[in-house]
Amino acid sequence: MQIFRKISFWGCLLFCSHLLYGQATIEKWKVFELTLSGPNTGNPFTEIHLAGKFIKDGDTVMVTGFYDGEGIYKIRFMPQKEGKWTYVTTCNDKKLDNKKGNFVCTPAQNNNHGPVLVKDTFYFAYADGTPHYSFGTTCYGWVHQGDSLADVTLKTLSNGYFNKMRMCIFPKSYDWNNNEPLYYPFEGTPLKNWNFSRLNPAFFRNIERRIKQLDSLGIQADLIVFHPYDRWGFSTLDRTTEDMYIEYIIARFAAYKNVWWSMANEYDFMRNKKLSDWDYYIEQFAKKDKFHHLISIHNGTKIYDHTNPLITHASIQGEDTYKAKEYRNTYKKPVVFDECRYEGNIPWSWGNLTAQSLTEKFWRGFTNGGFVGHGETYVTENPVNFPNKSSDVLWWSKGGVLRGESSERIKFLRKIIESAPSWLKPIPLFTWMPFSCVGVDHEYYLGYLNDAQPRSIIINLPVDASYNVEIIDTWNMTITSLEKKFSGRSLIELPGKPYTAVRIVKQK
Amino acid sequence: MQIFRKISFWGCLLFCSHLLYGQATIEKWKVFELTLSGPNTGNPFTEIHLAGKFIKDGDTVMVTGFYDGEGIYKIRFMPQKEGKWTYVTTCNDKKLDNKKGNFVCTPAQNNNHGPVLVKDTFYFAYADGTPHYSFGTTCYGWVHQGDSLADVTLKTLSNGYFNKMRMCIFPKSYDWNNNEPLYYPFEGTPLKNWNFSRLNPAFFRNIERRIKQLDSLGIQADLIVFHPYDRWGFSTLDRTTEDMYIEYIIARFAAYKNVWWSMANEYDFMRNKKLSDWDYYIEQFAKKDKFHHLISIHNGTKIYDHTNPLITHASIQGEDTYKAKEYRNTYKKPVVFDECRYEGNIPWSWGNLTAQSLTEKFWRGFTNGGFVGHGETYVTENPVNFPNKSSDVLWWSKGGVLRGESSERIKFLRKIIESAPSWLKPIPLFTWMPFSCVGVDHEYYLGYLNDAQPRSIIINLPVDASYNVEIIDTWNMTITSLEKKFSGRSLIELPGKPYTAVRIVKQK
Repeated sequence: MQIFRKISFWGCLLFCSHLLYGQATIEKWKVFELTLSGPNTGNPFTEIHLAGKFIKDGDTVMVTGFYDGEGIYKIRFMPQKEGKWTYVTTCNDKKLDNKKGNFVCTPAQNNNHGPVLVKDTFYFAYADGTPHYSFGTTCYGWVHQGDSLADVTLKTLSNGYFNKMRMCIFPKSYDWNNNEPLYYPFEGTPLKNWNFSRLNPAFFRNIERRIKQLDSLGIQADLIVFHPYDRWGFSTLDRTTEDMYIEYIIARFAAYKNVWWSMANEYDFMRNKKLSDWDYYIEQFAKKDKFHHLISIHNGTKIYDHTNPLITHASIQGEDTYKAKEYRNTYKKPVVFDECRYEGNIPWSWGNLTAQSLTEKFWRGFTNGGFVGHGETYVTENPVNFPNKSSDVLWWSKGGVLRGESSERIKFLRKIIESAPSWLKPIPLFTWMPFSCVGVDHEYYLGYLNDAQPRSIIINLPVDASYNVEIIDTWNMTITSLEKKFSGRSLIELPGKPYTAVRIVKQK
Repeated sequence: MQIFRKISFWGCLLFCSHLLYGQATIEKWKVFELTLSGPNTGNPFTEIHLAGKFIKDGDTVMVTGFYDGEGIYKIRFMPQKEGKWTYVTTCNDKKLDNKKGNFVCTPAQNNNHGPVLVKDTFYFAYADGTPHYSFGTTCYGWVHQGDSLADVTLKTLSNGYFNKMRMCIFPKSYDWNNNEPLYYPFEGTPLKNWNFSRLNPAFFRNIERRIKQLDSLGIQADLIVFHPYDRWGFSTLDRTTEDMYIEYIIARFAAYKNVWWSMANEYDFMRNKKLSDWDYYIEQFAKKDKFHHLISIHNGTKIYDHTNPLITHASIQGEDTYKAKEYRNTYKKPVVFDECRYEGNIPWSWGNLTAQSLTEKFWRGFTNGGFVGHGETYVTENPVNFPNKSSDVLWWSKGGVLRGESSERIKFLRKIIESAPSWLKPIPLFTWMPFSCVGVDHEYYLGYLNDAQPRSIIINLPVDASYNVEIIDTWNMTITSLEKKFSGRSLIELPGKPYTAVRIVKQK
């Protein structure tokens, strides 16, 4: 890596952007990366304070740089406005201070819709206004498994089931996650003696590579900052180390448009952290991430108070996804059931849902105005010395292939939701029946009848229009259009089997 | 009926009991019925106050008589002790006063176990100590439909699915219950002008015939005293009429050993009754029924405060039958989920469960220490002018045949429960998994894994014994014994499909 030290400042910049008529350019919402050579003595993680000020007309955005090892420093910036930007660095080291330059931010191309933001209280949309319906999945430790398995995971993801990946930054220690990670976040001797004052750039470089790969598949990277499943000491860092870590991941990752910040997996299972600690972390991200990515905090058994205004959406662990409507009202935010138990066959109760059950939880969540996340925990082996000696690769733990039957059904639902009018809201179409419905008044209704098997339903449609009705078999993934058109009080005949949905669309 | 008036007092008595060496006898817990001739002028229902005092050694039981029409008065008594009983009547009419006699109460025979009582806080047992596990069903209006349909209902019941029938005394007015009843409880012109001061003995005679038919099948008659589904005015009687009605049904029905008193179906849906009214009714039954039959009150959406010491058991409407364990702890009484939604295909949410769901609710209720009731609501016709014009006979409304698939599974569970050791209690065999288990410590465990599909479970069995394990497929009704025996921490392999139970029995 010695060569890097000798590359000039401008040379490094050219690696990261393009020249348009001799002018560096960067596409809107993509990463402008400034690479600088600086000191590699002392402790660059704690001693060097580098920042970049990015200016466009009246806008000034100040972002922190980070040390990437081997005397290399970087500043990453995601331009959110088109046109010419100038920048200047500030640093307590002269070599890195007062570096100036400029680039042109060009319009977003193709599938680049920008980062996901909250829209109209209950919804998500990309920065360009395109709705985002969150269909997440979970592979907690997939970034820590090496290329060959990650390639399989990415191939699985390329099938378009999901548009969000819930993943840990720190490695995970748990059943089916007993191997050592590829890299460690800190320097030192693994499991013996960490040097918590020095981060390991290779660890973070590996993660940002995965973030970029996810982005190329249109998948949000829901990064879990802390979690309790730990045998290395990463769940019990002191505040100084936590501050360094948080500042570092914001500096490294925040310029990637598909990043979401999840403060925790199961915050309430981290016994040495108090509620005030979590409030502190939330505040750090809200303050230091100048691109204002989504911020959430995920519970074990005790739901966080998501009314905290710095939390952008409610990230819920809970199996009753139909409560999405209730949580919307409580928190006045988008509601994401990131964990509602997983399809699988392990003994632990959170990992042995049938595919039917998980599919149902998705439908109930979405037709109650929420979003739902997937996970899969199928073991394949005879469970001798189970589960510690198992070499099984479970999607939920490491990624790989999907063995279940819910993912195809989730994709089917995703197509239905993405082809619906935007901003579906809960509508009480079924009055006192426990069936759920989202829609757009007078225009569109998507109702779901759970695992009930009525052979007919009676609903009150508007009287001033005529409606097409389609019967959706959410399990067999068929959509059958009824010949008859409906208006006003309508009796709709159904197949009388569970997992039925109805789509009702106003005739043009 | 003129002939009755001329039959002597002794002649009437002989109709109702037997002679043993010239001595009238009655089997323990059966009905001793004294028939007397008296005035048929005036209003015998309000003007004649007849009672019988039954004496055996130190025991004296005073029961009220009732008017059966045509100048006939009856006093019914269920002897609960063997040996010689004497009796004497008291009445404000001389002709009915001071009638004396005696009879011998003989031991119970065959399947006569006596009435069902509460045993050891959480359980039911017959008076002879035999455990009673409540497997109820519901045919609200079956007694009001006439013989041909009642015969079909009784034939269905003879298959042994259920041992309790939940049924209304007053006729019911509701969807699929729109016909007029066979008889009315009061004299007068139906739907025009009732004479609420005079009861109609034929109405009650019809019901007691059904009570006796149920008894002959070993089925408890859970009689619903009041309910809200009314078009005749029987849900809004004045207190005087209610008092007369309550006294009358106690006098007529309480001597039948299989009678249970249910104050209401859905007490909270009867808007003109206050909580104090319900407390009053409960008190009347507790005070006036000298045989101390079970007393309960069933809710619509708002569960009654079952801590009332005069309520013998908690009668719950609620679909979460797994809460039986919680309700046991709250109420310190047997918990019966009399209504947890029904298997069927009607639009109303309480009547469109799959057979799988209802079967699951039974298993979850029983393996959480409770009891569960069945109901079925299958329509067969094309729902034109639905549901008012439907001629469908639904089990839940009128009886008839069963069309569903849960009843056979309920019978399968019933056999398992009835062959288990007595007084199963909830045991936390599965620690932090949401699977339920009842058993007898160290001896017997019956666990249920819901609709989960684990391919193995890990449980901690006692280390000082060896256990047989059987895998029960609750849907396909198979029981498979594992060859291996288990002790201490045990990994038990499972078929990995939903609706699995495990039975674990200590080896002899």
